[in-house]
Amino acid sequence: MASFEFPVRVRYHEVDAQGVVFNAWYLAWFDEAMTEFLEHRGLTYRAMLDAGYDVQLVHTEIDWRAGIGWGEDVVVAVSTARIGTTSFDLDFAVRRGDDTATCTARTTYVVIAVDGSGKREIPRLIERALGTPAPLRGT
Amino acid sequence: MASFEFPVRVRYHEVDAQGVVFNAWYLAWFDEAMTEFLEHRGLTYRAMLDAGYDVQLVHTEIDWRAGIGWGEDVVVAVSTARIGTTSFDLDFAVRRGDDTATCTARTTYVVIAVDGSGKREIPRLIERALGTPAPLRGT
Amino acid sequence: MASFEFPVRVRYHEVDAQGVVFNAWYLAWFDEAMTEFLEHRGLTYRAMLDAGYDVQLVHTEIDWRAGIGWGEDVVVAVSTARIGTTSFDLDFAVRRGDDTATCTARTTYVVIAVDGSGKREIPRLIERALGTPAPLRGT
Amino acid sequence: MASFEFPVRVRYHEVDAQGVVFNAWYLAWFDEAMTEFLEHRGLTYRAMLDAGYDVQLVHTEIDWRAGIGWGEDVVVAVSTARIGTTSFDLDFAVRRGDDTATCTARTTYVVIAVDGSGKREIPRLIERALGTPAPLRGT
Repeated sequence: MASFEFPVRVRYHEVDAQGVVFNAWYLAWFDEAMTEFLEHRGLTYRAMLDAGYDVQLVHTEIDWRAGIGWGEDVVVAVSTARIGTTSFDLDFAVRRGDDTATCTARTTYVVIAVDGSGKREIPRLIERALGTPAPLRGT
Repeated sequence: MASFEFPVRVRYHEVDAQGVVFNAWYLAWFDEAMTEFLEHRGLTYRAMLDAGYDVQLVHTEIDWRAGIGWGEDVVVAVSTARIGTTSFDLDFAVRRGDDTATCTARTTYVVIAVDGSGKREIPRLIERALGTPAPLRGT
Repeated sequence: MASFEFPVRVRYHEVDAQGVVFNAWYLAWFDEAMTEFLEHRGLTYRAMLDAGYDVQLVHTEIDWRAGIGWGEDVVVAVSTARIGTTSFDLDFAVRRGDDTATCTARTTYVVIAVDGSGKREIPRLIERALGTPAPLRGT
Repeated sequence: MASFEFPVRVRYHEVDAQGVVFNAWYLAWFDEAMTEFLEHRGLTYRAMLDAGYDVQLVHTEIDWRAGIGWGEDVVVAVSTARIGTTSFDLDFAVRRGDDTATCTARTTYVVIAVDGSGKREIPRLIERALGTPAPLRGT
């Protein structure tokens, strides 16, 4: 399965005094990319909430190889890396026009009930949207 | 009435590629300063919500005279500028150690009911916290 | 002259605990919209800097009429409101799909030299990009 | 060596629509906490730059156990976890008043020359500030 790519236009305020995108904004980008990925695969965030489910970020690992400057157009590639019982992992890769990955990440999400009652087994509608795992990062 | 001063330590990511605090962060600072101002004057945000009231920002005007760099310690002075029937104005002044105001602002807040029923006359508990108007900006 | 419209997809983290976009993010949106507006009219930010000019925000006024929730697609309309000797004003209007303006703003930018020598008369390349003033807001 | 604790007051705009601090802001907090930690141990960021060195974030791992709401006062504990040849690790723990760690993280920084010539061996002034490693997280 080809991974999904979410285009990001770097915002001026995301670039810090070192002239590159400040590290925290990558997590904000991944958050958007996750939502768009699920939507692209048929599951809107709204539909997930309406079905009684939400996801909670419990773990993330990020590796940076290079910085990104203002005016650069990048994409965030997203792919399902693992599907467990109550949690799943997504892989992210920030890529430049020349396809170099300047940053990769893996994030673990736990599926919870919106009524506050805690963890849930991954339901069919989320499993279907996640598809067959195809990691972007080595383990 | 002397105005209240809220100390701000500039965060690294608030400084943009021009080397000064990005304009949008001033609004985030004013938001914190407003909350601290009311709390300093005896009204916590929680108590206001518990009493059934919230405030909504409907207008702001900001003037910048100079930029602020990373590592600079500044204060945001806050003072009540006007108390109307359902709205009030606060004045803000961002000041350096030498007391120069690098930025001043005036913001209008409307008092609303937390139950979604709209505008409310300014209740006693908010009026008391606001005190006697003493604008920091000319009109 | 029809105004330029810059599409904005509300990011999850821009929505605060009140369920609407936090006020400071509007300034970040306007900043992006300004850059895109000039670029759309033939002047990239890079070309402006290369020609020795930059712009500095000195004043802004914002009026909010309604909040914007997560998942809403909005546009930021931009139009030149005034061209002075060393400064110019842009008007912004945040519009929903049904064309309601939920927020309007006017921002004053001063043209400065990139070499740190201060204000400059608005050069031809910026004037041309700004075009004929066509305010979106009343004065 | 007791770890350093950096107090954080949650800002209103850091809380998202789920009612807890949005994940990306943790990285912004850690960034501030790192700077304050080094300064507390005798090395200001300015002095480091003046000596010709800067640090670059190349890896981070974060684990969240619970969310943090608005109005909560938390501290970010910081401790040196590892000192290598050209890189070092810092551990972070976000703690509530009752000392529960709601989030822990480990970040790897590479020491670089400010002149753009790349990696450098960790100089004495940084090594001294880092002190003896005392990890907050298991490996």
